[in-house]
Amino acid sequence: MEKIAVIGCGLIGQGWATIFAQSGYDVAIYDASPEAAAKAMATMEPRLSDLAEYDLIKSSEIPNILARISVAASIEAALDDAIYVQESGPEDINIKTKITRELDTLAAGNVPIGSSTSGISASRYCNDIYGRSRCLVVHPINPPHLHAAVEIVPTQWTDKNVVKRVDNLMQKCGRQTILLNEEIDGFVVNRLQGALLEEAFKLVGSGVVSAEDLDKAICDGLGLRWAIMGPMQTIHLNAPGGVSDYVARYGKMYRGFGIGSYDEVDWASITKEKLATKMSQQIPVADISKAQVARDRRLMALLRHKKQVQVET
Amino acid sequence: MEKIAVIGCGLIGQGWATIFAQSGYDVAIYDASPEAAAKAMATMEPRLSDLAEYDLIKSSEIPNILARISVAASIEAALDDAIYVQESGPEDINIKTKITRELDTLAAGNVPIGSSTSGISASRYCNDIYGRSRCLVVHPINPPHLHAAVEIVPTQWTDKNVVKRVDNLMQKCGRQTILLNEEIDGFVVNRLQGALLEEAFKLVGSGVVSAEDLDKAICDGLGLRWAIMGPMQTIHLNAPGGVSDYVARYGKMYRGFGIGSYDEVDWASITKEKLATKMSQQIPVADISKAQVARDRRLMALLRHKKQVQVET
Repeated sequence: MEKIAVIGCGLIGQGWATIFAQSGYDVAIYDASPEAAAKAMATMEPRLSDLAEYDLIKSSEIPNILARISVAASIEAALDDAIYVQESGPEDINIKTKITRELDTLAAGNVPIGSSTSGISASRYCNDIYGRSRCLVVHPINPPHLHAAVEIVPTQWTDKNVVKRVDNLMQKCGRQTILLNEEIDGFVVNRLQGALLEEAFKLVGSGVVSAEDLDKAICDGLGLRWAIMGPMQTIHLNAPGGVSDYVARYGKMYRGFGIGSYDEVDWASITKEKLATKMSQQIPVADISKAQVARDRRLMALLRHKKQVQVET
Repeated sequence: MEKIAVIGCGLIGQGWATIFAQSGYDVAIYDASPEAAAKAMATMEPRLSDLAEYDLIKSSEIPNILARISVAASIEAALDDAIYVQESGPEDINIKTKITRELDTLAAGNVPIGSSTSGISASRYCNDIYGRSRCLVVHPINPPHLHAAVEIVPTQWTDKNVVKRVDNLMQKCGRQTILLNEEIDGFVVNRLQGALLEEAFKLVGSGVVSAEDLDKAICDGLGLRWAIMGPMQTIHLNAPGGVSDYVARYGKMYRGFGIGSYDEVDWASITKEKLATKMSQQIPVADISKAQVARDRRLMALLRHKKQVQVET
């Protein structure tokens, strides 16, 4: 059985350990604080029981999953024979630099070192590190074991083969990988969240709407579709002629709201160059009305689910 | 039984008719094209059957619901005795002006006239209309019968009692009302969507990420939480000390991404003035860790639901 090292045993590290062990990997967890590692081990069983209760794993698998996770007595022991290192230490650039340098010194030469950081691009801490070509960000959403989305963010030095191997590994672990072609502050997930939050703060701050009502706009509105499909597929299905038609109909309106500071972002030309063909490969324009029917059936299934959950709680 | 008039029988008008009839109101639908009205009637039965299939209504209720909806022979007949008018005509300011003027002339004096417009603030078409104090926007999300969120947007002339009556009516119809205190282009729903789309176009357009991967960031990431709770409640639960703690920890980071053109939007002071107390009334800071556990259970239930839907299709 191949082995993965998880360095840092906070909530994120614990989530990663669960994910890797569920996918059949042996997992060595290590934390500078032995108490933290012991505490992490104690959280595994209830977390897995919860997953089983919701039919996300089988109860009968739990002992095997738990048996794959162990606390390493030292960082060296954690790294020994590991095929991948997931570093989940504190969000502090100095600590990241120190840990990554140590991992690079100790880990076998071809082992990728991924960081769970949500805010620090890898180039900022691995610049002076010998093995910077194997360093990259592999950023989950909290809690990791409940969100399949994972961002993979290479630096300009990251070996393309390292990126490919990490991407494959993550997919084997059931992750939906979001591959960034270049580093950008906040990556994709938090930039999208940040853009929505910025507008939310503007609307609440100026007194246009209460926070409570704004929340309804998402959880009883946009968020329902977004739990089923992303924003690009959403707009592709919201006009009879697909995304190009959507942007032709509504692009000017949206940009007229004065949202966003990007003078250079031209929805129409981006759609023509990067979206129209790709989205039509996913769902041909001729199939849009059929796909709308399917979307509405999934929305109804989601509404039934929400209704049931409400009755139960 | 009280009666509601639905003027304009496209997809939005059809959705409204279903909603009102489900809630026990008699519904008179009218369209300038009699064919459109007849066609709308023909869509009602399959739409209701779909809702019953997904346990959102009882099959046994369908005949009663259908019996409440009828095509009015004239606009006068539609308005006769109606307690509320939902106008769902074309998105064209000249047509809106013409229809609203006609409705104002024909409807009884105290009857509110709501428009389904997604993009035209009511003040732009009702300025010169005698009964402008009863005109306002009542904007659903498409398809209306599958999204509870409804935006209520009064103009500066709209009577406060009209707003209150429409809000009550919508709540009686199971709507989650989002009450705007002033008109703003795009209202709340489309401004939030527009802000996220602007960032999405920027990221895809600049080649940072593919549209396909960007979609994963939402539907396997942020969208899961947003189907359960809005963005403000989401961040309130994402720091041990609630929303103030979240903004203290991450506000500077988000604003550092260079997203949004709002120099005047200060997350920290908005949080202090408009968010902290309100969010703590919803979920006290002392209860946050308990609420996180509840959130994770709802996330697991949602993941199980998505897994089941995938198996079925």
